[in-house]
Amino acid sequence: MAIKKMGAQTVKLLNPPSIVSTGTIVGPKEGEGPLKEYFDVIIEDDLFGEDSWEKSESKLQKEAIKNALDKISFPLNKIDYIFGGDLLNQIIASGFSARDLQIPFFGLYGACSTMSESLSLGAMIVDGGYADKVICVTSSHFSTAERQFRFPLELGNQRPLTAQWTVTGSGASIVSSEGNGPYITHITTGKIIDPGIKDANNMGAAMAPAAADTIISHFKDTGFTLDDYDYIVTGDLATIGKEILLDLAKEEGLDLTEKHRDCGLEIFNNEKQDTHAGGSGCGCSASVFNGYFYNLLENGKINRILLVSTGALHSPTSAQQGESIPGIAHAVSVCTSLGKEG
Amino acid sequence: MAIKKMGAQTVKLLNPPSIVSTGTIVGPKEGEGPLKEYFDVIIEDDLFGEDSWEKSESKLQKEAIKNALDKISFPLNKIDYIFGGDLLNQIIASGFSARDLQIPFFGLYGACSTMSESLSLGAMIVDGGYADKVICVTSSHFSTAERQFRFPLELGNQRPLTAQWTVTGSGASIVSSEGNGPYITHITTGKIIDPGIKDANNMGAAMAPAAADTIISHFKDTGFTLDDYDYIVTGDLATIGKEILLDLAKEEGLDLTEKHRDCGLEIFNNEKQDTHAGGSGCGCSASVFNGYFYNLLENGKINRILLVSTGALHSPTSAQQGESIPGIAHAVSVCTSLGKEG
Repeated sequence: MAIKKMGAQTVKLLNPPSIVSTGTIVGPKEGEGPLKEYFDVIIEDDLFGEDSWEKSESKLQKEAIKNALDKISFPLNKIDYIFGGDLLNQIIASGFSARDLQIPFFGLYGACSTMSESLSLGAMIVDGGYADKVICVTSSHFSTAERQFRFPLELGNQRPLTAQWTVTGSGASIVSSEGNGPYITHITTGKIIDPGIKDANNMGAAMAPAAADTIISHFKDTGFTLDDYDYIVTGDLATIGKEILLDLAKEEGLDLTEKHRDCGLEIFNNEKQDTHAGGSGCGCSASVFNGYFYNLLENGKINRILLVSTGALHSPTSAQQGESIPGIAHAVSVCTSLGKEG
Repeated sequence: MAIKKMGAQTVKLLNPPSIVSTGTIVGPKEGEGPLKEYFDVIIEDDLFGEDSWEKSESKLQKEAIKNALDKISFPLNKIDYIFGGDLLNQIIASGFSARDLQIPFFGLYGACSTMSESLSLGAMIVDGGYADKVICVTSSHFSTAERQFRFPLELGNQRPLTAQWTVTGSGASIVSSEGNGPYITHITTGKIIDPGIKDANNMGAAMAPAAADTIISHFKDTGFTLDDYDYIVTGDLATIGKEILLDLAKEEGLDLTEKHRDCGLEIFNNEKQDTHAGGSGCGCSASVFNGYFYNLLENGKINRILLVSTGALHSPTSAQQGESIPGIAHAVSVCTSLGKEG
């Protein structure tokens, strides 16, 4: 069998699957942000016609999947697997979405890293010949996350400036064995890195060291250089986390200043929209990757990005028990042309 | 590429990976049950020297992994991936375990189906050549689950006879590209089936239709018959769920009476141990498969089993919002000799 493992954390896909379609849907606030033209649907009310925010989030996932399928007129029942996850306890947004879709379902939890976790597993399963087409999907919802991880919204708590704003939205990718790209060529899977942060309102700082570790491993494992990439796209480090990532990478000889972009900093205009450090949540990199960056790739405006969704693997219970917030980051290399493949 | 997909939900592994070692650890009550001689470690106190049950559960996972590695003197740092999950919000038992192990980590959530979910993904990743050795691990803990899903233990609530007893324990499998079995040969991935049950004290009934659906799909997809199997082993259907499964399978022409065993019915002596309908939890099929059934396979007492861990994809929030309890079941076919492979 041909060697697929490169270095300690990376595999090279020998039959790189294509992301043949994506679907996105976001909430009203996200729909007022700088990327509004890149989303398929902007809902007007974050309850989305449901009687709870959790049910609304589940519906967001189903709609993102529907949007992705409709664009290529592909029937849902021909999808082999769904790789899905979200931030809710017992990933109920994904579970109840998959219940209604009736496709074999792998439930994932990687906190806000789940979009690139789902693309990592989905791409390997397609590349390996176990499936022709899979759906990779995640979601988050400001109102479900805020009350689960922090405080009831009704309290009207003041948010510190390090806090991030959980994105209401969902993004879905259809990963296919046949297609003309954008291709997933390499996967670098993250280890858990815990910098000892205990402040649930400073997630960027908790996740940045994991992002740095995965990005540095990716370059070490593959032999790629920064010149091979248009952008290194992290999930939701936001302002504080971005600064830490740039510092940590520079210490390892990698100057990301020109190439780094963060989905959490793209989706909102922090100053005008009062979103403090920036966006976060499973739905952040899901909607920004499947909306904005996929559009840039598909239209040939860029050739290759490294998507590095970033997650914080804590819970209110672990915080109450004095634990710090461990971070994780999974990277997938996505490019438009296989000629430049490493 | 050779065809790996068989029917709608099953893949056949062309380079069947071996489960080269397993590790198990259980709590005091499980250590008094009928399978006590099959577990590597029985802890005396369910806090396991930690200051919370959640931290104890995380330690159980690390110990199960250590036991599995020690048996084959294999170094942890040569493991390519951990596929881990548990029942806790944000899978903190697995996250904090993986934090200390420093191996690339895929977090999974399939409720009590997570053991066979992890074996499914782990086996495909090894079979496909993306890894040489991976660890598949899950855990549960009576005291963490009870207070998260039902009531504080201090309330001393009376449990109805349909209730199951969450197993305190963990089981880990080392899945390897090289080895002499037991081999994972086929994987049938479950769809979510929701029979409309709303009683969180009747999980067996909520999960049995999913188990039936996956088992029937497995036989339809592979062409196997019941004669090919020594046992069909479900995760934690317990007494109520077992009865429903047997009925549903019989309606489809599959008489499981002689071949069916359920990990939740093996681990406790329900009458003597006051465990009502039987055991449950991610740690139930994890410890019973990796302890008892692995032993039977390894010692040539049986040749082939279908492990069908069963999960209920609900949460206290979904229950409070009036949702029913959707079930899911993932099946892996494990055999000692590749000659009989389908």
